[in-house]
Amino acid sequence: MREEKVFVFGHQSPDTDSICSAIVYTHLKKVLGLNAEPVRLGEINKETEYVLNYFEVEEPQLRDEVSEEVSQVILVDHNERQQSVSDLDKVQILEVIDHHRIANFETESPLYYRAEPVGCTTTILYKLFKEQQVEIEPKIAGLMLSAIISDTLLFKSPTCTPEDEKVAQELASIANVNLEEYGLDMLKAGADMQGKSIEEILTMDKKEFSMGEHKVQVAQVNVIDENDILIRKKEVEEEMNRSVDGNELDLFVLAVTNILSNNTVALAVGEQQQAVEKAFDVSLEDGQATLEGVVSRKKQIVPQLTQVLS
Amino acid sequence: MREEKVFVFGHQSPDTDSICSAIVYTHLKKVLGLNAEPVRLGEINKETEYVLNYFEVEEPQLRDEVSEEVSQVILVDHNERQQSVSDLDKVQILEVIDHHRIANFETESPLYYRAEPVGCTTTILYKLFKEQQVEIEPKIAGLMLSAIISDTLLFKSPTCTPEDEKVAQELASIANVNLEEYGLDMLKAGADMQGKSIEEILTMDKKEFSMGEHKVQVAQVNVIDENDILIRKKEVEEEMNRSVDGNELDLFVLAVTNILSNNTVALAVGEQQQAVEKAFDVSLEDGQATLEGVVSRKKQIVPQLTQVLS
Repeated sequence: MREEKVFVFGHQSPDTDSICSAIVYTHLKKVLGLNAEPVRLGEINKETEYVLNYFEVEEPQLRDEVSEEVSQVILVDHNERQQSVSDLDKVQILEVIDHHRIANFETESPLYYRAEPVGCTTTILYKLFKEQQVEIEPKIAGLMLSAIISDTLLFKSPTCTPEDEKVAQELASIANVNLEEYGLDMLKAGADMQGKSIEEILTMDKKEFSMGEHKVQVAQVNVIDENDILIRKKEVEEEMNRSVDGNELDLFVLAVTNILSNNTVALAVGEQQQAVEKAFDVSLEDGQATLEGVVSRKKQIVPQLTQVLS
Repeated sequence: MREEKVFVFGHQSPDTDSICSAIVYTHLKKVLGLNAEPVRLGEINKETEYVLNYFEVEEPQLRDEVSEEVSQVILVDHNERQQSVSDLDKVQILEVIDHHRIANFETESPLYYRAEPVGCTTTILYKLFKEQQVEIEPKIAGLMLSAIISDTLLFKSPTCTPEDEKVAQELASIANVNLEEYGLDMLKAGADMQGKSIEEILTMDKKEFSMGEHKVQVAQVNVIDENDILIRKKEVEEEMNRSVDGNELDLFVLAVTNILSNNTVALAVGEQQQAVEKAFDVSLEDGQATLEGVVSRKKQIVPQLTQVLS
């Protein structure tokens, strides 16, 4: 392979799908003859660390800029500019493989863009392996499976499609793991709050949204026991209030999602706190409410808040 | 099919790919159970008319707005908002099948987006038929073949990939036509300027682009003799100037492309006229220059102008 190198990467604050998709798609592109290399745009979280250890795969190298090393890149699991490398405008985007809405994205030239409204990027990658007739090795299958489990919370999220579940079953058999058992262990590893600072908990998986005239942040954290967080509620709320002041937010919601019960405890601070009450038809008590059956920020939290605040 | 209807359409000032892709993809989606209907966003040109007559296919109905009839649409052969229906923001974009750059495109929700850097949309559609294991009927193959011949100027355009040519060969055998002979007849039918008003010539295949801060339109017309147009040069330029004033354009380029010699004569008006000189390293004489070997707006005109104007 004498061609110039191409970096493959997922979004900032990478989750398991972003890391695994970068590694898996790099593997496929290398088999097809491209000089590809996976990189990551942030720290590996505990869930992803569990996955990479389990399947004995090295973590990609960390980058926040890429244009001094490569002139072409492939994006996986994201397309919005503000979620990508800071110098994206200085490189050519060769391909995008994604399962999100398209926004803040523009290219000068035609490209290969493959998006489908499925629960996980690796569900699309699975099809690309089939289309290219490239065999999926057990290790690669393990990474793809882990991404699906992570993004769909073991098929519990409303973002999960029948296709994601079917692909996951096949991948589990190639990877030779017990899907339920491995999946729960993996999610539990990610839900381990031990040794995490309040700041880490609040920034691990935080996204910002414009809702009507309002600036809103929604952070989400997976737990196996809400009390891991609620025991530190006072400090958490103090830090959330600092964030509201510092970032001029109208609302900051922390969604503490229990991966066993599939309920979410929401903590809300900011002037628009009462939007949570209207959006979910609940009463906040001491800034806190339980949202029964809510696990997906994308489908069950953001649209509901947007509607109330717009 | 009790589902709500979904419109499938290509870009404004439709070319053969936009019309044929809409008809062909509608056919595939109907086979797959969707209540789809093709529409067109402008008049059928002579080339496309030749194609539809040859294969005895009805032209789609004309629309410029769609949101009062449907709430969901599928875009083929384009994605940029300004090339689409005027009320695109009022409907949900279910899918996009395209072979252009991505720009001025944004959705609220995840969607199916399939773009590949090939010469023609129907080359991608060919793959979708294969992936879905739907047989391609002779009539449908004829439309797909015609779109490839049109977009690649019978494989002469630099946008043409080996894949386009291979797919075209297969489609020609399904459609049972002599590729070279049919192709040239079809292109000649499109290059017939007889009875065309200046306004028709300028709007037949016109696209608008944002280049840096500048608003640019590039119209293209295929001929078998440049003089069919140049004999009316004064009137053409007057009409182009009216368009510059009426649409507040910084530059309006008419590319007169000879499908036999594969050269283009460019006429340029507007304040940024000199961008043409820089982009192609030519001197405009009386607003006119010959661009040797240039046949593709997408690959050989728009990127070059964009670079100069950005």
